[in-house]
Amino acid sequence: MIVTLPIQIGPTYRDVLLARERIQPFIKRTPVMTSESLNRLTQADLYFKCENLQKVGAFKFRGACNAVFSLSDDKARNGVATHSSGNHAAALALAARLRGISATIVMPKNAPSVKVDAVKGYGGTIVFCEPTLHARESTLTSIVEQTGATFIPPYNFCPVIAGQGTAALELLEDTPSLDMLIAPIGGGGLISGTALATIGKSPTTQVIGAEPANADDAFRSFNAHTLLPQTAPNTIADGLLTSLGNITFSIIQRHVSRIFTAKEESIIQAMKLVWERMKLIIEPSAAVPLAVVLEHADFFSGKRIGIIFSGGNVDLSKRFW
Amino acid sequence: MIVTLPIQIGPTYRDVLLARERIQPFIKRTPVMTSESLNRLTQADLYFKCENLQKVGAFKFRGACNAVFSLSDDKARNGVATHSSGNHAAALALAARLRGISATIVMPKNAPSVKVDAVKGYGGTIVFCEPTLHARESTLTSIVEQTGATFIPPYNFCPVIAGQGTAALELLEDTPSLDMLIAPIGGGGLISGTALATIGKSPTTQVIGAEPANADDAFRSFNAHTLLPQTAPNTIADGLLTSLGNITFSIIQRHVSRIFTAKEESIIQAMKLVWERMKLIIEPSAAVPLAVVLEHADFFSGKRIGIIFSGGNVDLSKRFW
Repeated sequence: MIVTLPIQIGPTYRDVLLARERIQPFIKRTPVMTSESLNRLTQADLYFKCENLQKVGAFKFRGACNAVFSLSDDKARNGVATHSSGNHAAALALAARLRGISATIVMPKNAPSVKVDAVKGYGGTIVFCEPTLHARESTLTSIVEQTGATFIPPYNFCPVIAGQGTAALELLEDTPSLDMLIAPIGGGGLISGTALATIGKSPTTQVIGAEPANADDAFRSFNAHTLLPQTAPNTIADGLLTSLGNITFSIIQRHVSRIFTAKEESIIQAMKLVWERMKLIIEPSAAVPLAVVLEHADFFSGKRIGIIFSGGNVDLSKRFW
Repeated sequence: MIVTLPIQIGPTYRDVLLARERIQPFIKRTPVMTSESLNRLTQADLYFKCENLQKVGAFKFRGACNAVFSLSDDKARNGVATHSSGNHAAALALAARLRGISATIVMPKNAPSVKVDAVKGYGGTIVFCEPTLHARESTLTSIVEQTGATFIPPYNFCPVIAGQGTAALELLEDTPSLDMLIAPIGGGGLISGTALATIGKSPTTQVIGAEPANADDAFRSFNAHTLLPQTAPNTIADGLLTSLGNITFSIIQRHVSRIFTAKEESIIQAMKLVWERMKLIIEPSAAVPLAVVLEHADFFSGKRIGIIFSGGNVDLSKRFW
């Protein structure tokens, strides 16, 4: 008899456990918070993993940290680089600083100054480029060629995915017997890591994805069983504009039970509820799982639900309501 | 030889311990949080006791709870009453609901609807009156006469002071060897309770009061050694407009080391720093201790400092910066 072993693409639960060991000295073990008032409103038991309180204000620090500390000394010496104007950029800058190496971040020259300042504040070197994908990629390529820096992609990259999974691992340790666990989906790094952590740690817990209806490539790809890119996303949840990658899509297909979408007004309502009732600042992207619970109340009521508050970086000079 | 024993006016450390036992089943044990970025900025080690995450969004729930649960069943049967349009009103309403008794709150008819809604949300009965102190007091008196309800004053009242002290007690348990502990001063209930907890639990820790320069009756009274009322206060820290009472002033005189004031712009700066760096929503009054640390950096640098974030109730439709 010939047995064909399945080929495992991408990281596994074991990588999440290794990531946790690797990054533990550097990350914050963020608290899990609850709110009686939100439980009453949703008729569910909600447990919020507060990655908005993580260093850099987002879960992204976990993945960046794991990627940076996975490098050999030889590789690390030449530094790391990425293109991003979001939380991954700041996260990579801080992770590199902690390892004592350089981080070069390619940013479009129209990036908001608050994001530029964040990266600078963590000691990252910024290289500006024209605001096109082509300019970003070619600028990054030439930096990598010139410096020998290692490119750390924001989500479609095994060490990053494994690092992101450590948030769910902690949540499942602190809050046993969850019926389900919901994470937002942008490029899919967080939900993929969450799924890997959950199948290993608590296989009976369902993993559910939450996406803005106005940036629903994961929802469509999941249902069509083929990777469909995001075109013209338009959502206040600016951390979720990107499309899935092949690795994250493959993990989502295998291990995510269901994806729900949320309307813009539900996202804003959810965000405001958390600010008001929990006194926690979360960014719009982080409010999408709660928005999904509010919109699909029948599905979620009566359940014990873990929710990952993915980040808290908002421009406080902006008006949200 | 005749020994004259000092007469102890007001509550003691023992009352704080009793309060803690009494209210423990009802309150949240709020977390103590830290921020590397604020430590770097102030060159101090800051430990923030997050009473903005307390039920009702403020420490006031501790005092109200202790007062309500200190009543005999006979007394309690007729309910409780107060006049307030702030956190004490909401706190008393919830504490009464938890004991299963009625709470009547006298509010000026021009009170902001967000405060009215909060009290209603916790099941309190609101009686509106003209927006003058005389109208408030006479309305309250007639309610107490008609219903037999017990008046629970917001701060100049021993069970309330003892209850407020439980926040510092928890902070001192979770964070040993503090050099100092700073609380904001309005009517003086929080700082008095804090002082009582500290002399009992950690007598070498200095207790420091923080007040807006634009509502500095405690600062002036403390330095003049006589109770001077607040006239025409004008500060964004709207929880600190009231004057000290005789009981709170007496405790402050005996047990507080020093009072510092902070300018309006420092209060706003401190509040924004906490929102931005800690992702925690605090109200302006809660930002006054950090504002004081920022303004008097030399005095505080190098110290281990506990700070009580007194509350997180802000009108999110308002612009603060």
